[in-house]
Amino acid sequence: MNRILNFSAGPAVLPVEVLSKAGAEIVDYHGYGLSVMEMSHRSKAYSDIQDETEQLLRKLMNIPDNYHVLFLQGGASTQFAMIPLNLMNKNHTADYLITGSWASKAQEEGARYGDARIVASSKDKTYTYIPKTTKADYNPDADYVHICTNNTIYGTRISPDNLPDVGALDLVADMSSNILSEVYDVNKFALIYAGAQKNMGPAGVTIVIIRDDLLGNAMECTPTMLDYKIHADNGSLYNTPPCYNIYICKLVYEWLDKLGGVSAIEEINKVKAQKLYDYIDNSNFYHGTAEKEYRSLMNVPFICNNDELNAEFVKQATARGLQNLKGHRTVGGMRASIYNAMSMEGIDTLISFMQEFAKQNG
Amino acid sequence: MNRILNFSAGPAVLPVEVLSKAGAEIVDYHGYGLSVMEMSHRSKAYSDIQDETEQLLRKLMNIPDNYHVLFLQGGASTQFAMIPLNLMNKNHTADYLITGSWASKAQEEGARYGDARIVASSKDKTYTYIPKTTKADYNPDADYVHICTNNTIYGTRISPDNLPDVGALDLVADMSSNILSEVYDVNKFALIYAGAQKNMGPAGVTIVIIRDDLLGNAMECTPTMLDYKIHADNGSLYNTPPCYNIYICKLVYEWLDKLGGVSAIEEINKVKAQKLYDYIDNSNFYHGTAEKEYRSLMNVPFICNNDELNAEFVKQATARGLQNLKGHRTVGGMRASIYNAMSMEGIDTLISFMQEFAKQNG
Repeated sequence: MNRILNFSAGPAVLPVEVLSKAGAEIVDYHGYGLSVMEMSHRSKAYSDIQDETEQLLRKLMNIPDNYHVLFLQGGASTQFAMIPLNLMNKNHTADYLITGSWASKAQEEGARYGDARIVASSKDKTYTYIPKTTKADYNPDADYVHICTNNTIYGTRISPDNLPDVGALDLVADMSSNILSEVYDVNKFALIYAGAQKNMGPAGVTIVIIRDDLLGNAMECTPTMLDYKIHADNGSLYNTPPCYNIYICKLVYEWLDKLGGVSAIEEINKVKAQKLYDYIDNSNFYHGTAEKEYRSLMNVPFICNNDELNAEFVKQATARGLQNLKGHRTVGGMRASIYNAMSMEGIDTLISFMQEFAKQNG
Repeated sequence: MNRILNFSAGPAVLPVEVLSKAGAEIVDYHGYGLSVMEMSHRSKAYSDIQDETEQLLRKLMNIPDNYHVLFLQGGASTQFAMIPLNLMNKNHTADYLITGSWASKAQEEGARYGDARIVASSKDKTYTYIPKTTKADYNPDADYVHICTNNTIYGTRISPDNLPDVGALDLVADMSSNILSEVYDVNKFALIYAGAQKNMGPAGVTIVIIRDDLLGNAMECTPTMLDYKIHADNGSLYNTPPCYNIYICKLVYEWLDKLGGVSAIEEINKVKAQKLYDYIDNSNFYHGTAEKEYRSLMNVPFICNNDELNAEFVKQATARGLQNLKGHRTVGGMRASIYNAMSMEGIDTLISFMQEFAKQNG
């Protein structure tokens, strides 16, 4: 078995234990005589899986009872529409903090259904920082405030102790690329959403954690399948859910739970990221592109002094099995995505290679 | 390895060869050193998979070049909204043929966006037949005519030689439960859609085959992710697609292609279904619930003389490894779903059990 070190921004590395387990039971799940892919979504065997998946996520994130956990389809991009369609129906206005191109896409989609006001944006500096805001910056009539807690492309984050002060307003967060990476207090949010394909499982399932009182206010034009209440009322079984994708999430949650949960992985993630940032900062060869105060624990963009070196770095790294390190075209250089499933050894191997490359080219 | 005979209506049985192959390469796909679940959707390795999946489907269904093949999320239920949102924007009226509860749900969703006229319905007899219509029954101004080619719950179908004569109108078909089971001429349709979880793969991917001229007419309120043109323009990569689900479809398409394609499986399916229907009709113990003329090749509902016998049948069959035979509550009795991946031996085993049960209880 050959395994690369996969620094992909997403879909991303999964724990090899999870993949092996899934492989071992793909033809015959727990003696039931069929694959999870072949189970009726109305069967006891499958509903046990989905229930356990939800319970594990509730445990891992300490999700209060007054929140529903939904397993949906369509990715975060579908949430960009579902959020205004369901939540922007009181004052028809919402506030958006623009910290990257995905936050910007969310705002653009919101603007199709009401007044999606831009509170602040870091576009002026290619989203290398998080704009500072105060409570006074937010519209007290906003139906919600939308933020993105981790900006995959630019390597910035809004950490749990740096959430904007939005007073009594409903905070909605896209956590696609840092959910389960550190402890956020769910109570501070009205709605959290995340595509699975970074820290949870395969692409094709989107987790939505929504406070119960927000259900039932969808706009008239909302497609049935885009109404949160429909899914909440039916335990995410209004129609056939992406059963196998949910099952893989369950295996990932089990892996994380055994490891000690989110607080345990947070410690590991902080050590992993700090190692890499410290090396970059002390290297005199590499340069981190995000402002230090706002650095992501999940995505570490860095550059060499010129584009030829960047290209050569990616090429040589790839040949050595350190793959998918090419940065997003809007930032250039490299990006190491170091999600929960990226091991400490993976970070050490990356740093060793960076040292070697710097020595040869410095 | 224990394998039941899985007569589930969906998600449903998949070829064991497909599952074994997926299991064997789940940790390391073709020496790439990662799982298909872990691949960036922008990587060459993944885009090759998606391209091959599309090419195989085009080959299997003989899809003309002026049709796009889209890999979407949200199941057929999301299509119930996407179709009117994208296609009911000229005359704001469409015709629906109601042949089951799913067709009815499609019509109800359509009615939220325009005049979704019911051309005919077989609800009067619990959808046990397909209403006969003539060209004169259809509104010449209809933006489309919606049909469901196979009614999973009731075991009826609109066979390729029994498609309604809708003249020059655009025919839209939900083929979720009989796509790839027999040869339909794609040219006769404007749009074909199908959730994967019966004849193609795991739940979580929906195939849409759409004639190019229908793109670009979405209503103003259409969420970006529900606009066919967005997905067509981006090769189903506008956002992260359900990559692993698509990959399993590829394996199923390869399996079907090796077997000789749709015309070959059609012959097998006809023999499988005929065996079962012939036995039922000659048994004097079981009774098929659908009218003979409209019988499905995929779903075979049948009943014993009373509910106690039905319950006992399901119980004993389950104990013998013939599972998920309980009929839908609206029909009662039993339903054997015999999709492409159900083997001839599976049918023979079912008939043997039915004979034995009839003998003991007749």
